[in-house]
Amino acid sequence: MTQAIGTATDTIAAIHAGTSTVEAWHTSCFDRITKREPEVRAWASLRQEGALCEARALDRANPSTKPLAGMPLGVKDVILTRDLPTEYNSPIYQGFVPNMDAACVALLRAAGAIPIGKTETVEFAAAVRLAPTHNPLNLAHTPGGSSSGSAAAVADGHVPVALGTQTGGSVIRPASFCGICAIKPTWSRISREGIKMYAPSLDTLGWFARSVDDLSLVYDSLVPDPALPLDAPEPGQLRIAICHTPFPDCADLATRRGLARVGALLEACGVSVSTLDLPPEFDGIDDSARVVMRAEGRAAFLPEYRTDYADLNDHFRALVENVEGIGDDDLRRAYDHAAQCRARFDMIASDYDAVLTYSVPGEAPRGLSNNGSAAFNSLWTLLHVPCVTVPVMQGTSGLPVGLTVTGPRFADRAVMAVARVVHAAVAAEEREAIVAL
Amino acid sequence: MTQAIGTATDTIAAIHAGTSTVEAWHTSCFDRITKREPEVRAWASLRQEGALCEARALDRANPSTKPLAGMPLGVKDVILTRDLPTEYNSPIYQGFVPNMDAACVALLRAAGAIPIGKTETVEFAAAVRLAPTHNPLNLAHTPGGSSSGSAAAVADGHVPVALGTQTGGSVIRPASFCGICAIKPTWSRISREGIKMYAPSLDTLGWFARSVDDLSLVYDSLVPDPALPLDAPEPGQLRIAICHTPFPDCADLATRRGLARVGALLEACGVSVSTLDLPPEFDGIDDSARVVMRAEGRAAFLPEYRTDYADLNDHFRALVENVEGIGDDDLRRAYDHAAQCRARFDMIASDYDAVLTYSVPGEAPRGLSNNGSAAFNSLWTLLHVPCVTVPVMQGTSGLPVGLTVTGPRFADRAVMAVARVVHAAVAAEEREAIVAL
Repeated sequence: MTQAIGTATDTIAAIHAGTSTVEAWHTSCFDRITKREPEVRAWASLRQEGALCEARALDRANPSTKPLAGMPLGVKDVILTRDLPTEYNSPIYQGFVPNMDAACVALLRAAGAIPIGKTETVEFAAAVRLAPTHNPLNLAHTPGGSSSGSAAAVADGHVPVALGTQTGGSVIRPASFCGICAIKPTWSRISREGIKMYAPSLDTLGWFARSVDDLSLVYDSLVPDPALPLDAPEPGQLRIAICHTPFPDCADLATRRGLARVGALLEACGVSVSTLDLPPEFDGIDDSARVVMRAEGRAAFLPEYRTDYADLNDHFRALVENVEGIGDDDLRRAYDHAAQCRARFDMIASDYDAVLTYSVPGEAPRGLSNNGSAAFNSLWTLLHVPCVTVPVMQGTSGLPVGLTVTGPRFADRAVMAVARVVHAAVAAEEREAIVAL
Repeated sequence: MTQAIGTATDTIAAIHAGTSTVEAWHTSCFDRITKREPEVRAWASLRQEGALCEARALDRANPSTKPLAGMPLGVKDVILTRDLPTEYNSPIYQGFVPNMDAACVALLRAAGAIPIGKTETVEFAAAVRLAPTHNPLNLAHTPGGSSSGSAAAVADGHVPVALGTQTGGSVIRPASFCGICAIKPTWSRISREGIKMYAPSLDTLGWFARSVDDLSLVYDSLVPDPALPLDAPEPGQLRIAICHTPFPDCADLATRRGLARVGALLEACGVSVSTLDLPPEFDGIDDSARVVMRAEGRAAFLPEYRTDYADLNDHFRALVENVEGIGDDDLRRAYDHAAQCRARFDMIASDYDAVLTYSVPGEAPRGLSNNGSAAFNSLWTLLHVPCVTVPVMQGTSGLPVGLTVTGPRFADRAVMAVARVVHAAVAAEEREAIVAL
């Protein structure tokens, strides 16, 4: 395994110990990109020269003062970066280079990360113009969206970490399709300043990595609380609830069986595993998420509608024009339904160390024209709860399928700690066996 | 009365009719600014030459194609503008000129408004470094904050309309202190893209004008729905509830008497006036607003804390460090309390055409070191409901005091329509008489 596809945690330890360099890290990433990018197409733009220059400067200074030690970072192209274009995969913003960083980029730079490029995204992280990115595990399949390039770049070893955003399922879904880890933290925990808004009640920064420890490392640089190693709970003391959501039939048979098999493996490790059925008040939670997204999206895309109508495609025009006819009462009901379910889910979930559920209905669809379904993501995004996906099984055609660990709002660290246990409980050989058993 | 201190609605009608010009409008505004700015100090920056150039270009083109017909616009200096600095009254951002507009600025430009300058603000629209702005009605008094410059500029006739933001009481309070109208629309109705975030659950764009019709005119350019004239309800068919909030004792005696007197005047016009006591579940709503503001502010100011610690003052450092010790459970409770009260208030308020309440405890305090209290604003900001303040009385030292018209979420137009009735019901002579009766 080359350095480029190891974990950030390991490489940073080596750089801090003086046994590797930031420049070597970047060089290995760009080597990988050079080799793979023509097929994978994860990147909207790159700054190889600038990144290598910063890497060498950090090596000359002292990378051990920086927790992220020059870590090469991919940034979804809906997040402002002052040294790279921010184009949203929209013709309206071609060539636009903002002169400011989004809050998340500023924070990761401060911690020593070096943005090396912008990753391909679905138009405005919303719809219609999909990313040109292929699933690196099978180029004939989608990597999922809307954070398509970030997921593919991390999965393919171009970068150890990349930023994404989730309004429906735009982080958890592509991570699952690409066989990597990702987190969508609790809503409001991390500043979204400088991230293109779509639905402010839903929009959440997230990121991709190849281990839960790497997710945690980045988390520590984005929140005000002190950096802490994740807890390492004893499996024998863990209580995990399996939740099939209100729409279990959306999952294909292999995935449903896989979830059951992972539950059995966890039990074999000593974890107490039970089943959590969401009460009837959660019925229609997917519809509430849809209403909030569409109604808030009206406001989000109104400026482009008014100033660049010709370059705004029909989907966004229809959104602004509210062709669905979503009324104020619909939005009010959706807000209040979401709020009621948030409080209720926190209460229900507090009986467990974490909740295990689907990340996706199954493997990445074939072709690039279908990003897959967000059925198993939108409800958690609406509930504002932290979600971590870990790759723990394979589908019938050999592509990975992740499972989501979630919990009450603000239980981000606890959820990551349990996700690490789940990830470890299913050893790599086992993952390949968990398929349509 | 010079053109500069008329209403936008009247001037736009004259321009559309070809009896006045955009250039004349701007010239009269800048004349007024030149005369008054040395004392009032409403402006952080101005672009006289650029604005006049755009005004003349619009006159040569056809201003009648633009609903706002070149309207001179003040923009609070926490809102991104591509042709003016955006400095947040923070030493960290001195000289920063972003290369993009906030959504609200883009929308108003598209409707034909011309930003002429940035208005003074409290640091980051939050705390500590107050604006240098004086109350134009009595220079010894504060104009209120944090949208200090916008309120003063509109009140003093520098511009017909200026944008502000409200996280606690930063729009309604200074409007009240300066004797003008202002609106804080329903949360989520208008994009906040490009407005410095403080507390995303609370932050709301608002604006100042000298009539409710002018507020409505600007509203129509910021929302996706078609522009509509405000309803003109018959006073005899209106039901208005007077709400003293859970903390009526915060209002001074003159203001409490004034509210009662306005209620009596409305009754005399035929309005059905009753009293609305918020049920006990609203107790502590001010504390919930404070918890949300502080907890979300931690994330908002973390980038400046990490990158510009030396130039970030103690207040923001303490916020990020959470010296108050606000826990995740506190924030969860505050979120859920707010959500519960939102649904409940909508239900209660739907029995009336609007709710009439305090905008401020009383007149603008003397001196510039005290912005006044947001006691009567924070709860409505947290509830996400539309608020319109209209100047309808005077305090004991002759300074104006406004009252707030509010209603359920998304009742923005209905609230404006009732606010116009309230404004009109109290004739100018009468306003001066409504003082500590």
